[in-house]
Amino acid sequence: MNNQNPIFIPGPTNIPEVLRKAVDMPTIDHRSPVFGQILHPALDGVKKVLKTTSGEVFVFPSTGTGGWETAITNTLSPGDKVLAARNGMFSHRWIDMCQRHGLEVEVVTCEWGEGIPADTFEDILSKDRDHKIRAVLATHNETATGVRSDIAAVRRALDAANHPALLLVDGVSSIGCYDFRMDEWGVDVAVTGSQKGFMLPPGLAIVGFSPKALEAVESAKLPRTFFDIRDMAKGYKNNAYPYTPPVGLLNGLKTSTEMLLGEGLENVFARHHRIAEGVRKAVHAWGMSLCAKSPDLYSDSVSAIRTPEGFDANRIVSHALNTYDMAFGTGLGDVAGKVFRIGHLGSLTDAMALSGLSVAEMVMADLGLPVELGSGVAAAQEHYRSSAAQARKQAA
Amino acid sequence: MNNQNPIFIPGPTNIPEVLRKAVDMPTIDHRSPVFGQILHPALDGVKKVLKTTSGEVFVFPSTGTGGWETAITNTLSPGDKVLAARNGMFSHRWIDMCQRHGLEVEVVTCEWGEGIPADTFEDILSKDRDHKIRAVLATHNETATGVRSDIAAVRRALDAANHPALLLVDGVSSIGCYDFRMDEWGVDVAVTGSQKGFMLPPGLAIVGFSPKALEAVESAKLPRTFFDIRDMAKGYKNNAYPYTPPVGLLNGLKTSTEMLLGEGLENVFARHHRIAEGVRKAVHAWGMSLCAKSPDLYSDSVSAIRTPEGFDANRIVSHALNTYDMAFGTGLGDVAGKVFRIGHLGSLTDAMALSGLSVAEMVMADLGLPVELGSGVAAAQEHYRSSAAQARKQAA
Amino acid sequence: MNNQNPIFIPGPTNIPEVLRKAVDMPTIDHRSPVFGQILHPALDGVKKVLKTTSGEVFVFPSTGTGGWETAITNTLSPGDKVLAARNGMFSHRWIDMCQRHGLEVEVVTCEWGEGIPADTFEDILSKDRDHKIRAVLATHNETATGVRSDIAAVRRALDAANHPALLLVDGVSSIGCYDFRMDEWGVDVAVTGSQKGFMLPPGLAIVGFSPKALEAVESAKLPRTFFDIRDMAKGYKNNAYPYTPPVGLLNGLKTSTEMLLGEGLENVFARHHRIAEGVRKAVHAWGMSLCAKSPDLYSDSVSAIRTPEGFDANRIVSHALNTYDMAFGTGLGDVAGKVFRIGHLGSLTDAMALSGLSVAEMVMADLGLPVELGSGVAAAQEHYRSSAAQARKQAA
Amino acid sequence: MNNQNPIFIPGPTNIPEVLRKAVDMPTIDHRSPVFGQILHPALDGVKKVLKTTSGEVFVFPSTGTGGWETAITNTLSPGDKVLAARNGMFSHRWIDMCQRHGLEVEVVTCEWGEGIPADTFEDILSKDRDHKIRAVLATHNETATGVRSDIAAVRRALDAANHPALLLVDGVSSIGCYDFRMDEWGVDVAVTGSQKGFMLPPGLAIVGFSPKALEAVESAKLPRTFFDIRDMAKGYKNNAYPYTPPVGLLNGLKTSTEMLLGEGLENVFARHHRIAEGVRKAVHAWGMSLCAKSPDLYSDSVSAIRTPEGFDANRIVSHALNTYDMAFGTGLGDVAGKVFRIGHLGSLTDAMALSGLSVAEMVMADLGLPVELGSGVAAAQEHYRSSAAQARKQAA
Repeated sequence: MNNQNPIFIPGPTNIPEVLRKAVDMPTIDHRSPVFGQILHPALDGVKKVLKTTSGEVFVFPSTGTGGWETAITNTLSPGDKVLAARNGMFSHRWIDMCQRHGLEVEVVTCEWGEGIPADTFEDILSKDRDHKIRAVLATHNETATGVRSDIAAVRRALDAANHPALLLVDGVSSIGCYDFRMDEWGVDVAVTGSQKGFMLPPGLAIVGFSPKALEAVESAKLPRTFFDIRDMAKGYKNNAYPYTPPVGLLNGLKTSTEMLLGEGLENVFARHHRIAEGVRKAVHAWGMSLCAKSPDLYSDSVSAIRTPEGFDANRIVSHALNTYDMAFGTGLGDVAGKVFRIGHLGSLTDAMALSGLSVAEMVMADLGLPVELGSGVAAAQEHYRSSAAQARKQAA
Repeated sequence: MNNQNPIFIPGPTNIPEVLRKAVDMPTIDHRSPVFGQILHPALDGVKKVLKTTSGEVFVFPSTGTGGWETAITNTLSPGDKVLAARNGMFSHRWIDMCQRHGLEVEVVTCEWGEGIPADTFEDILSKDRDHKIRAVLATHNETATGVRSDIAAVRRALDAANHPALLLVDGVSSIGCYDFRMDEWGVDVAVTGSQKGFMLPPGLAIVGFSPKALEAVESAKLPRTFFDIRDMAKGYKNNAYPYTPPVGLLNGLKTSTEMLLGEGLENVFARHHRIAEGVRKAVHAWGMSLCAKSPDLYSDSVSAIRTPEGFDANRIVSHALNTYDMAFGTGLGDVAGKVFRIGHLGSLTDAMALSGLSVAEMVMADLGLPVELGSGVAAAQEHYRSSAAQARKQAA
Repeated sequence: MNNQNPIFIPGPTNIPEVLRKAVDMPTIDHRSPVFGQILHPALDGVKKVLKTTSGEVFVFPSTGTGGWETAITNTLSPGDKVLAARNGMFSHRWIDMCQRHGLEVEVVTCEWGEGIPADTFEDILSKDRDHKIRAVLATHNETATGVRSDIAAVRRALDAANHPALLLVDGVSSIGCYDFRMDEWGVDVAVTGSQKGFMLPPGLAIVGFSPKALEAVESAKLPRTFFDIRDMAKGYKNNAYPYTPPVGLLNGLKTSTEMLLGEGLENVFARHHRIAEGVRKAVHAWGMSLCAKSPDLYSDSVSAIRTPEGFDANRIVSHALNTYDMAFGTGLGDVAGKVFRIGHLGSLTDAMALSGLSVAEMVMADLGLPVELGSGVAAAQEHYRSSAAQARKQAA
Repeated sequence: MNNQNPIFIPGPTNIPEVLRKAVDMPTIDHRSPVFGQILHPALDGVKKVLKTTSGEVFVFPSTGTGGWETAITNTLSPGDKVLAARNGMFSHRWIDMCQRHGLEVEVVTCEWGEGIPADTFEDILSKDRDHKIRAVLATHNETATGVRSDIAAVRRALDAANHPALLLVDGVSSIGCYDFRMDEWGVDVAVTGSQKGFMLPPGLAIVGFSPKALEAVESAKLPRTFFDIRDMAKGYKNNAYPYTPPVGLLNGLKTSTEMLLGEGLENVFARHHRIAEGVRKAVHAWGMSLCAKSPDLYSDSVSAIRTPEGFDANRIVSHALNTYDMAFGTGLGDVAGKVFRIGHLGSLTDAMALSGLSVAEMVMADLGLPVELGSGVAAAQEHYRSSAAQARKQAA
């Protein structure tokens, strides 16, 4: 790879120049006041991105997976029951983590491509009169299938059942990309990472805890030290960190939140939606369909595109890489070989998106799929053209 | 501009990551032996790129314009006569420089879009029995018109006329992009810069002098100090420089020549030709034509594309920048408003080229030109697909 | 802080230019073969630095603290007993982590400034006939006190007691700085991070597991997912990672091991020793003493310097930062206010070390301590001068 | 060289992190409005640094030598007479350039170490009743000898003689380091470069022209194109440049002037003076003396230090480089082998300065000079300590 092409994996994203420079720092004394001047603006910025005023944010040198572990080990105890839907690889993995940590998981199995079934959740929660279910797990954006679930609906299910379970949400590939409302939706723990909507290199697990989740921490008996938010909270109060902080990435996070909030979150979301719509119009022009079952589930972060029966979708990804130095995402788990994915999260221009679509067309043509060269590009161009003026106005 | 889109001006080019890092150096002591370990490999590398074994290379902290001034002030004296064709903005400017330096220029005026008329040169040189013409100036690649002239033919004209004039060649936007043979073509001074085929930031004038040109230096009476190659030559012998050297750019030049020679010059040229062909196929698919009069004149560095009569071509460039953050080149001089230019020199992938063509299509459609969305892209895709396997083999 | 002074905290260290550039990478597809070409050389390089041929190396997006958690959760079960000495802040914290994970810790309390008492360990292990002690924890370099413990002696204690306990070693601030012999010393888990001897930004926990430790993994019942080495091992086999890998830091680790192994580990250790000796000679010239009780305990990574009774050593650190923009380390835990620390690990030149000593002298003079300006500098200069020729030879 | 030590050559200087990042830019379209947003603030910033409101600033991709050539070729004609003192290598070279450009130079020969003799200038100018002398050349800071000349006195000499000659001043190693007052001193052309007080990599010639100098441009007959300020002026008006601009360096210049003006010029000068004084106190503590004849001539940019009779001063420079990786300046021209130089311009901390002095002491001791280790360091420490509080206040 020569590093010149944009990448279209569903994260890590293309890193804007200013963020690369923010991360690339000489060593500072992380016990000096300079550190606090990086840490606190980063935490405050994340809160605004999460749309929370009552929650607290903690940032670990880790990844989204570490964020999940932070969420469960700080709020739950061995043997606790949790409710979760398995509708893709990432919800699957979080369930697996819970089981490995000795939690009992009530799994609602969905077809991959579906969203979280809030109705089913409401049924289950309503029947759980003893409130044995201590937490509901929800994956906001299933990166494997390109499905956006309705977290507000999950909250309504909890409320309708009058159930006190905590709501733990994986927002790894949604936060910073499309709307996420921690306070309004009553999210108790929100989990994300540095390498998606924040457009940074991987290396940070970013979690938000609601006051209710914070209350659960003392009684949570799952063992933890590295991921214990109590040590983090204690450190932050003193402009410090419980161990060596990843200063460069935190400085990047500070700068990233400045960029996102400077642009305006609603503009960031509109920008993602516009780019994503162009990709989807191209997919439809190719005569293909998305893994996501219906338009309300379409993710503005990533599109998983179904390939024809009998065709190995992984060939698209490997051919794109080997022949055109371009990275798309393979299908994972149940949809391995059945879909390929185009990540369209983070900072992407029309030109970048069109370059990805152009290459996808060449690849599919090379592999004998019935895709007309230029057809998807034209559909996306039409969309980008017609919405360009509005996009410019928002960016200004 | 958000810096994420590739640029399509005909230089400076997109800078590969490895070259940005090579240039971005902490200060070293330029009087220490470390400097020689940067300077000499850079000079040797440039010689190989120029295909000269008998010439000497000098590198100035300057630009191609400074390279022209180096060429004439080190070989000519006030009142000397030179022969030159004016077939574009850059040949025009070099002629202007000669006149401002008190040289008499016999100008052969050509239509912009034509190459250097070697036949006319032969006529003029043959008639110059007293050898009053001391030098012939030739612009290898007219960046303004996208025209490649035939330098070998100019050499043949000189030889046919049995004329001793020096052959001074502007190879600013050809060297490192397509074939240039200093020794074989009897080029006496070759001029280029850092920001074109070498893919570096601007800031270096790079010149090659043949033994015959070196002989002319002592008798050349045009005043010069900064551009005097005698000071340079004396410095180089001692691993030194006559003034403060641009160490980072020289380190970049060393690395750039390693890249070009590592890839193989013929592969570099084939790569440029392949990308350029894709662009030209798109242009033809749009129903448009190039400024260059005939295919033998097509430049593999830049294409100047004629727009319909009555349409201001500059609108394409400004609309592309304002609406899609993409930079193309405007028309200059005689063809201002009549052409826009797509630079395709330096390190470009298929995906990058296609992103430029996609945007060009949107821009032209936005401005009401009768261009079908996706049409040029499809033509370029077809070309890139069919030649991708061969390109891969060469890159390996 | 203006970032121009070297830092003298005991890690993170000053980052060499080449490592900053290795870490600062554009995003690549971490599921492509390119990733394996970064990952495997990094792992192989670390093995050589650990001096192990039989062990396996795992690298997590985390810190040394995460490395400790990896060590215990992958080898132990709730209620297991471990043996550890508390002789500084970092051994203290590791003990605390064990207790929070439900392990029973037999703590040997030492005065801070002492090394691990191998004799006492041998007594305890000999009396543990039922082998209830499942692991011995040892902190090779106590960063808080500047004490190097004798790991070979701990191994001899285990062997003399014929005890099968695992030997888990914190080598965070020793590995890559002074001699560490995983195989020869029978270390079962070795723990370090990116930001000390490897001279990288923080963000990686690096652990080596012996075959015996690997055997213990399946029966280890402490819950873990993020830090489960089985997922790592499975990923590595496929050039993959169980979650998003910190590619830039891994690329830095690859480059760092190339640097260390290229220089030669024994030369790296000699270099650290030489710089450290200069610092110690300065300390003695100031009439001060080290926290480490005896010369055999002196650490080549960091020196903790005792200040006079009644003087708050933290004032040195804050005055140095506020007045001279220079970062030293404060005393931690039991020696807070009683020592200040000069980190001398990683890539340091004589000039850098002398700048630290110069500033330390000014600071102490400013604060009224009876230190003669230039005295420590002169002692260090004498040492560096007399050993410079030898150092050069090793570097060559 | 491992790049970790600060350098003590009298320019290029150590480059602050923020300036390295400002220079390291991806390519932009230099014909787009973005370019004007870099260019004009850079030019305006330079004007403020030059303390001129009536002059115009021009910036060339070149060096200080190119700045000299710009000064003379834009204001003078072949055969014109100029007055200059030769009191060091750089004044010598400028004189040489004038002669090579066909100017008649009345040279006042001074001992190296002396300043410009304003009295002698006044005599000569007074006798030049026909005003044949068209320009007076003055080197503000003789980098070779560490001598600061009194430009205000040269202006007074011109005024006392009621002489209309232009005053052309080489401020390459003074501007941005110590006080320079273009308007107040009636400087007609001020010349500097990017790599001294502006702390950038080399590659820019920066010149200021007074209204009077601008008037002289049309009648100046020395041939020039690359350095013709008329083309520059015309370009600037259109946010453009007469050839490819060195965008990254110009962006660095913009940022550099923001840094200097943000700190406050008087604070910048006080900072240079303070660091320089520490170096001079060290020199005197070593029992050595400066090349500059008297304290009023001491340069705050660079100190040239006389070594004992019979000792080859170059050995200091080569030994420092070979043994301690540290770069000092050699003696040039008349004082070659008789002095070595410590550059102390640009961004330097106390710690950096002390590291240079420490190494100088080791080097001199190694070479058998009677220098007591720590003696110069102690003298400088005393100075830095006593002035640290005041320095902090200014920096705040």
